[in-house]
Amino acid sequence: MGLFGVYEGFIRRVDSLVWSLLCDENDSLGLRELLRYSVFSGGKRIRPLLAMLCCRVVGGSDEDVLYAAAGIELLHNYSLIIDDIIDRSVLRRGRPTVWKKFGVSVAQCVAADLAASAFRAAALSKHPVKVVEIFARVMKRAARGEMLDILFEQSGREDESYVVENRFNHVTLDDYFQMVSNKTAAFIEATCEIGGVCADASEEEIEALRRYGYNIGVAFQIRDDILDIFGKAEVTGEEIGKDLRTRKLGNLVILLACEEMMNEDKRRFLSLMRKNEELTNYELNELIKMVKKTNAEERAMGYGRNFVDNALCALRSLPQNEHVKQLEQIAFFILRREK
Amino acid sequence: MGLFGVYEGFIRRVDSLVWSLLCDENDSLGLRELLRYSVFSGGKRIRPLLAMLCCRVVGGSDEDVLYAAAGIELLHNYSLIIDDIIDRSVLRRGRPTVWKKFGVSVAQCVAADLAASAFRAAALSKHPVKVVEIFARVMKRAARGEMLDILFEQSGREDESYVVENRFNHVTLDDYFQMVSNKTAAFIEATCEIGGVCADASEEEIEALRRYGYNIGVAFQIRDDILDIFGKAEVTGEEIGKDLRTRKLGNLVILLACEEMMNEDKRRFLSLMRKNEELTNYELNELIKMVKKTNAEERAMGYGRNFVDNALCALRSLPQNEHVKQLEQIAFFILRREK
Repeated sequence: MGLFGVYEGFIRRVDSLVWSLLCDENDSLGLRELLRYSVFSGGKRIRPLLAMLCCRVVGGSDEDVLYAAAGIELLHNYSLIIDDIIDRSVLRRGRPTVWKKFGVSVAQCVAADLAASAFRAAALSKHPVKVVEIFARVMKRAARGEMLDILFEQSGREDESYVVENRFNHVTLDDYFQMVSNKTAAFIEATCEIGGVCADASEEEIEALRRYGYNIGVAFQIRDDILDIFGKAEVTGEEIGKDLRTRKLGNLVILLACEEMMNEDKRRFLSLMRKNEELTNYELNELIKMVKKTNAEERAMGYGRNFVDNALCALRSLPQNEHVKQLEQIAFFILRREK
Repeated sequence: MGLFGVYEGFIRRVDSLVWSLLCDENDSLGLRELLRYSVFSGGKRIRPLLAMLCCRVVGGSDEDVLYAAAGIELLHNYSLIIDDIIDRSVLRRGRPTVWKKFGVSVAQCVAADLAASAFRAAALSKHPVKVVEIFARVMKRAARGEMLDILFEQSGREDESYVVENRFNHVTLDDYFQMVSNKTAAFIEATCEIGGVCADASEEEIEALRRYGYNIGVAFQIRDDILDIFGKAEVTGEEIGKDLRTRKLGNLVILLACEEMMNEDKRRFLSLMRKNEELTNYELNELIKMVKKTNAEERAMGYGRNFVDNALCALRSLPQNEHVKQLEQIAFFILRREK
């Protein structure tokens, strides 16, 4: 976090812009409370910072990227609300999720409000048409990634027969990376891209920023997958083993662990993942232990390092100024973070 | 429907544009099926037609408004998916709703895809910045209208304590019209506005189109409210009495009926509306009968005619060409429609 302390001024400007985009003057107190809860939740604001740094690297000013940065943060918060509804997650950043606190129906409305406000921000940005197109593309990709993620689950959603009938019986690494590209990496890729676009960078520079963003995006998700199983709840603010509990094969550690297991173990592992009833705590711990017996964590980190290396490589073609150094730091930090 | 037959060519162009905005070339067959179901469902395409007519009235060409018209149709279909999820509606236009057919989680993803595609259309339209801003505004207003509509319900959603605790005990006509303005009328208002914007109409002309749209929008909702109780399921393709079954006070007929009832009846009516358990068919029929005993239908039609008159009045300041005649026809038609 110390890394971001120096940019507090920018974050404050983004936050106040987010608020003014979201809130209309005649909004009731109750509505304001809802909206505030949904965007001011102790998020790391890493996306606006990334957009700003990418803009600075190629010679743009903070002013150039301010609206687009606020927009990407709004769009990110929109996607968190929807993901939490879909995954029935009850905890995020140590607090009840929006749907858990206000109910699913109200959460839907708040999510729509956030998405609309994101596009409002895009329309007010320096290059409105390009930024709107980027936002639309990333929102479409996220929807497709999320759909894959759902179909990778091995159990649950008995009330959703389409999902049950169309699940992936087997998830390959290719499937996984396709899902992650769309669900997570596209978002970070777009974040870095708008930094370049708003700075009027060259096509080559924008492409380098996109590559950087894509690769740290995948690494970010891989670290998330690792923390889901090896993290500490009191640090991450989230439930440990959630991907196992929800029987997701869309987690690299789980996929790699599964790949490594011998016949007997694998059969037991998959039968628990496909069990119709909710897992007991005992069973969940059994799954965690089985994963921990493999080299999956180390191998996942290996994949992660590869993506970080690609990200660092993409930075080499960019102006080698102080801002590019910060982007390097962020890339290094991603696999070290504990939350 | 005969009214719209002559515009079949335009509708076909809109539909094919909707499809190309929605679908990416490497989308799987399964995804295409999902997307097709969600936008090609026998909808009346009244919004694209309205946008086109409004554009023509003030001298624009169909080309000018094509993208914006496709966008508003996508945004409309997005909002239908979300509304159906929130209201747990199982039937629309005689078919299972998107969530009913594909499950709530997948429906969420499809909805996000539609909304994103709507903004993609807006970005490609003749006046992208203005059209995106209008779309963002209408999406925000719809979210707020929907939230009010939820809070007007008198029972249900026991699993959503925020809603239960924040319900309106009493809904005034002002509350109702605020909800309808945001939830329905804003949408039609925006539809007519983009017609004018894409035709580069004058501020006064755009304002007249907005007023026309707003007023037919409210009338449209009033007719919907009436059909909910007095319609024929085999004609509307929807369940009769759904607003009563879901205990909505956000229906003008129900509000007016309630206002008219004498003490004893009113007490019985409200106690059924606030009953915790699901209504039996007997109770639902009792509610319908109680509404039918009042003058609520006639009075609601009176309100509707007022809004139609305002809409016709707004048209007078516009060029009196053949297209304005069509807009008049639509205004006349709204209160006569049976579905």
